Amino acid sequence: MKEGNTIFFNTRPKVRSYAAVCGSKEREGVIGSYADITLSDDMYGESTYEKAECKMLSDSIALAIKKSALSDADVDVLLSGDLLNQIISASFAARAFEFPFLGLYSACSTMSEGMLLAAALVDGGYARNCVAATGSHFASAERQYRYPLELGCTRPPQSQWTVTGAGACVISSECGGIEVVNATLGRVRDWGVSDVNNMGAAMAPAAADTLMRHFKDTGTVPEDYDVIITGDLGALGSRILKDLMWEKGYDISANHVDCGELIYKVIEDEFQGGSGAGCSAVVMNSYFFTKMNAGLYKRVLFAATGALLSTVSSGQGESIPCISHAVCLEARRD
Amino acid sequence: MKEGNTIFFNTRPKVRSYAAVCGSKEREGVIGSYADITLSDDMYGESTYEKAECKMLSDSIALAIKKSALSDADVDVLLSGDLLNQIISASFAARAFEFPFLGLYSACSTMSEGMLLAAALVDGGYARNCVAATGSHFASAERQYRYPLELGCTRPPQSQWTVTGAGACVISSECGGIEVVNATLGRVRDWGVSDVNNMGAAMAPAAADTLMRHFKDTGTVPEDYDVIITGDLGALGSRILKDLMWEKGYDISANHVDCGELIYKVIEDEFQGGSGAGCSAVVMNSYFFTKMNAGLYKRVLFAATGALLSTVSSGQGESIPCISHAVCLEARRD
Repeated sequence: MKEGNTIFFNTRPKVRSYAAVCGSKEREGVIGSYADITLSDDMYGESTYEKAECKMLSDSIALAIKKSALSDADVDVLLSGDLLNQIISASFAARAFEFPFLGLYSACSTMSEGMLLAAALVDGGYARNCVAATGSHFASAERQYRYPLELGCTRPPQSQWTVTGAGACVISSECGGIEVVNATLGRVRDWGVSDVNNMGAAMAPAAADTLMRHFKDTGTVPEDYDVIITGDLGALGSRILKDLMWEKGYDISANHVDCGELIYKVIEDEFQGGSGAGCSAVVMNSYFFTKMNAGLYKRVLFAATGALLSTVSSGQGESIPCISHAVCLEARRD
Repeated sequence: MKEGNTIFFNTRPKVRSYAAVCGSKEREGVIGSYADITLSDDMYGESTYEKAECKMLSDSIALAIKKSALSDADVDVLLSGDLLNQIISASFAARAFEFPFLGLYSACSTMSEGMLLAAALVDGGYARNCVAATGSHFASAERQYRYPLELGCTRPPQSQWTVTGAGACVISSECGGIEVVNATLGRVRDWGVSDVNNMGAAMAPAAADTLMRHFKDTGTVPEDYDVIITGDLGALGSRILKDLMWEKGYDISANHVDCGELIYKVIEDEFQGGSGAGCSAVVMNSYFFTKMNAGLYKRVLFAATGALLSTVSSGQGESIPCISHAVCLEARRD
């Protein structure tokens, strides 16, 4: 591991396949034509929001495996987690499969944590095929983190909208046009933001910390990437990130894209954009991987961002610790 | 990875050091003379149970690093999680350190999940020194999973007592008398148990599944291990595990020990014994590692067990999916 906590994958594990499921609101935006399954009803035929969330995650995992032309027996392990207490979406999704399960929790940076651990297990020779997956659901997240929808609470202007959706990818030792080149592990950063409606401001310092360590360790500059993707900073958080980076001599304004900013139509009044573990999971596993496979992006830096709070920690007066794990991906050159 | 999901570590990563903090009730039992810090007041000088839990975890991490004669700068990553919603104990503990953090959730099997991922990162050459850690607190667990202590609810006879304690170990590429030889990844097993007071019965099938796959993959039999340690099945769960194994031709009765059965004094009326992520974390990182270093145990199989439920999943009528990750440890032979 390099000084700035970057690990390099000699064999360059492949993104063999990917799949995404998204909700009714999400399909109205740019990812609508990229996601594999788009819901017309966010209950997804289930009796509770939580079960709908689990089904989206489970379906994205099954679909990614199917698209990889592998069977369940070829999968060595599922790495997954989600925003619900005790990651029940991931655990109950894993129950439906016969392969092992490694439960993760990294809030909305779970997608990149899963990808980096999957790549390490494949590159290290411990696994041939790993599935990394996560998701979220607007209604279950509101109920758990804020207020039940039925209360009809007013949303403040700095708030974001938790994405209803799930995404999964198969990371393999072979087959696939996208390679995982290296990854920079996130450190917990907390600049004292305690407004639970302002996740973007809380998470921006963690993203900046990871991106700067990544550039230093890899000897690259922002211009070396066709696109630098953050998870769910939203509009305000993205502005803060660009400012923080600029102050340290890194201008990412030309090629930074935030999944939370990208996912909804601009004309929708969603304040700062999308958030949630499903936000970057859906956008990466539909829009970006498809564009990479089409040759539109050659080298991509993906830094999902997570806010590591709970209602208990906020209730006890704590600020919001945040983290961002980054993964560098390249379209294969042969 | 072998057919039964066992991974082998060629370089045999070392348990370089370990540390444990335990509560006032726990220190009355067998681990009292083995733990590094034993509390007289389970609030540990903090204002809430959750903050006390975080402090125990944080202190066990810091102490393990100190005992390894390393500095924080030598640590590549902390792998940790806990039972609280959104693993706030681990996240807030990680905030106090400058090294990266990979958040895990595997309920009470977090200790072995952390150890196996740490060993893989070290063995794969991605890290030199990783810390694996977890913990739990009786009062915070009761409040979150069952009822606040202030209600004074009666505990049923099949219940267990969540351990107040935390444990951490440093897994390194060098130095240390205990080696991580291999690990068998857990699969989610659910035999339909839905009694949230009967975790032992819910978890026993997951432990049996992992142990049997481990024996098959490694070509070993129960007698090859000086001790086969499960996490927190308790007295009833341990009996069920022995029965399940015996039915399949494996007699583990001679050398099976459950951390939940071991931790409290038998004369105490704690029904089935201890449970919680801190249960196996404290017992492994005090009692067992000390006995291994003293040459009393040469080869140990450690299979922590986790119940992947939440109050929401139980409230929605779901049964309890469980998992068990196993790690094989050997005292160094030179």
